[in-house]
Amino acid sequence: MMRDVFIIGVGQTPVGEHWDLGLRELGRSAIEDALADARIEAVDALYAGNMLGGCVNGQENVATLLADAAGLLPVEAWKVEAACASGAAAVRAATLAVASGAQEIAVAVGVEKMTDASSGVVAAGLATAADQDYEASHGLSFVSLSALLMRRYMHETQQPRTAFAPFVVSAHKNAAANPRAMFREPLSVDAFATCAMVADPIGILDAAPVCDGAAAVVICSKETVRPHHKAIRIAGSSVASDTIALAARPDILTLRSAARSSARAFAAAGCSQSDIDLFEAHDAFTIITALSLEACGFAKRSEVLKRAGEGYFARGGPLPISTFGGLKARGHPVGASGTYQIVEAALQLRGEAGANQVTPARRALTQSIGGHGSIAVAHILEA
Amino acid sequence: MMRDVFIIGVGQTPVGEHWDLGLRELGRSAIEDALADARIEAVDALYAGNMLGGCVNGQENVATLLADAAGLLPVEAWKVEAACASGAAAVRAATLAVASGAQEIAVAVGVEKMTDASSGVVAAGLATAADQDYEASHGLSFVSLSALLMRRYMHETQQPRTAFAPFVVSAHKNAAANPRAMFREPLSVDAFATCAMVADPIGILDAAPVCDGAAAVVICSKETVRPHHKAIRIAGSSVASDTIALAARPDILTLRSAARSSARAFAAAGCSQSDIDLFEAHDAFTIITALSLEACGFAKRSEVLKRAGEGYFARGGPLPISTFGGLKARGHPVGASGTYQIVEAALQLRGEAGANQVTPARRALTQSIGGHGSIAVAHILEA
Repeated sequence: MMRDVFIIGVGQTPVGEHWDLGLRELGRSAIEDALADARIEAVDALYAGNMLGGCVNGQENVATLLADAAGLLPVEAWKVEAACASGAAAVRAATLAVASGAQEIAVAVGVEKMTDASSGVVAAGLATAADQDYEASHGLSFVSLSALLMRRYMHETQQPRTAFAPFVVSAHKNAAANPRAMFREPLSVDAFATCAMVADPIGILDAAPVCDGAAAVVICSKETVRPHHKAIRIAGSSVASDTIALAARPDILTLRSAARSSARAFAAAGCSQSDIDLFEAHDAFTIITALSLEACGFAKRSEVLKRAGEGYFARGGPLPISTFGGLKARGHPVGASGTYQIVEAALQLRGEAGANQVTPARRALTQSIGGHGSIAVAHILEA
Repeated sequence: MMRDVFIIGVGQTPVGEHWDLGLRELGRSAIEDALADARIEAVDALYAGNMLGGCVNGQENVATLLADAAGLLPVEAWKVEAACASGAAAVRAATLAVASGAQEIAVAVGVEKMTDASSGVVAAGLATAADQDYEASHGLSFVSLSALLMRRYMHETQQPRTAFAPFVVSAHKNAAANPRAMFREPLSVDAFATCAMVADPIGILDAAPVCDGAAAVVICSKETVRPHHKAIRIAGSSVASDTIALAARPDILTLRSAARSSARAFAAAGCSQSDIDLFEAHDAFTIITALSLEACGFAKRSEVLKRAGEGYFARGGPLPISTFGGLKARGHPVGASGTYQIVEAALQLRGEAGANQVTPARRALTQSIGGHGSIAVAHILEA
């Protein structure tokens, strides 16, 4: 029903602690890279994914800021916010704009600048993705809510915390080959097992880091694709929601938004789990990786950690995930991570992933999750 | 090129100081009203316009919150932020989603809850629409930036502050007949002339109030319109941007984004200024009303105050504006105001404006402006 849309350019900054760069500089850099990659100079619209601009940076109106900084005025420009899935939702917005025929070329940029504020301000900012009245105001932080999920999962499946180690070891291994990753050091199972606890059972190495970064994609109609473009088709694009408060869900270990958004994306793309060559997963916490893989149908309920232990999700396995290091090791600038996933999947499908290349790489799924599954955004890309 | 889309339901809460209602309750109320008006119970997607949730309410992920509260899960849901134009940009997002064919029915809701925080927190929140690095961090607030514009306009045109009075007198007169308006008392020119200064030359009566409110519209494809719907067609929908910092503009008295967004909307709708029966203007400050009317071509440069003095923009005049009281007197819950404008224009075109009815009312322009014209969203609606 929607007209086809394609990704013709990608850009990204290194992820890390950019003490000399703000939202403006990070966003502009990613946008300029994406435009240069597409070999175009102008777009019709800019959609910016960003979560913490208001809470942490004192800067809303971020889409206009970036359109201005990147020399793209007077384009259509607005910000998209969907908690930690903001960057993926911005790609969704650009996809809708081009699919509608309203715009021919649009840029979606995800950007986040987290390191200028105290950890308390950042923690409060992240907690705005939860239910302020019924969760955050009672002191539940993003990490502690995740800890509740992980504790429950370990209880129900009778598995130890160390069973989550393969996700983290694999992510760090993949990040080691990614020059834009924040953590490029290999990590041992023993280091994971003995790391400091943040909110038991979540240790410092279960969690993605606080960091800065921006990523961008250029999206256009079929008519706008040129022979020099290594165009990647957006075969499926879907968003689904669930209750914002965990306590309101019939089963907190079932990420219904992840299940629904991936199922809809599969239906739109006319394919199924077995057709996916790589999956950029939302590995903000090891428990979220586990739950999202189960929700997307890549493992049966309670069996994902066994599969992980067998190398199923590592490079060379049946379903490589987090191929550039994921949120865990590439880094998780929250409102940008969803865009990074799509940039990385596109690079894989273009065969330009270098030392991180997965083969075959004809079809990729990306999924970005906000607010412990209150929102999930899935995209299926095809070479 | 885009397929036609229609507004088939509208809803709104009264605007005011709702000490007993938060984002959740306000948004749900407007959504439920809009769904009841359209006589439907389910939608495919929800796009929420909101500016200050992060800064003022500690609540991002607002679209999911409202989808949950209104019983609309598991719809697609994300927030749209474009400073004070957020509510109009959410309607734009819904329009794109339906026009693309991705969704058949979507609800756009604008919501803002400003009265729970101190005035300093709200002022800092509003200043996030300006350039944090080059304006807000130097102490420039939203009011003081507007005062610079007004002082310059008065200097260049050699007109006194009292020449702005007709906008305010007319807005209060219109609001007096609107049961959902915040200020329903008539206002005299003398009261305007002698009011307390906030940031000279901006007095308390030049400015729209801090308040709470939510408004919603249901948008659908032509195929989804039913005989019982009083469907209003979105004939034009356009967004344009300008520099975020005022100092970067060649002429701060020319709102280029307002000019461009209205010109594009006129082109899309195939009509011109003389075809517009009413204009819901962004009258957050009297100076913004004046500049936007000139930018949209409803008065020549420097001549809008003369026209206002002749009753041109009052009810019964050639171009009634702010027909339900506008931001000034109906109230300006910032991220909701753009949606209120569209709700009010739709009511006019349906002939359901009661004591506020304008005749004829076949075609309306709405324009919502963010960040002193760094972003502007225009819609043309047709009966």
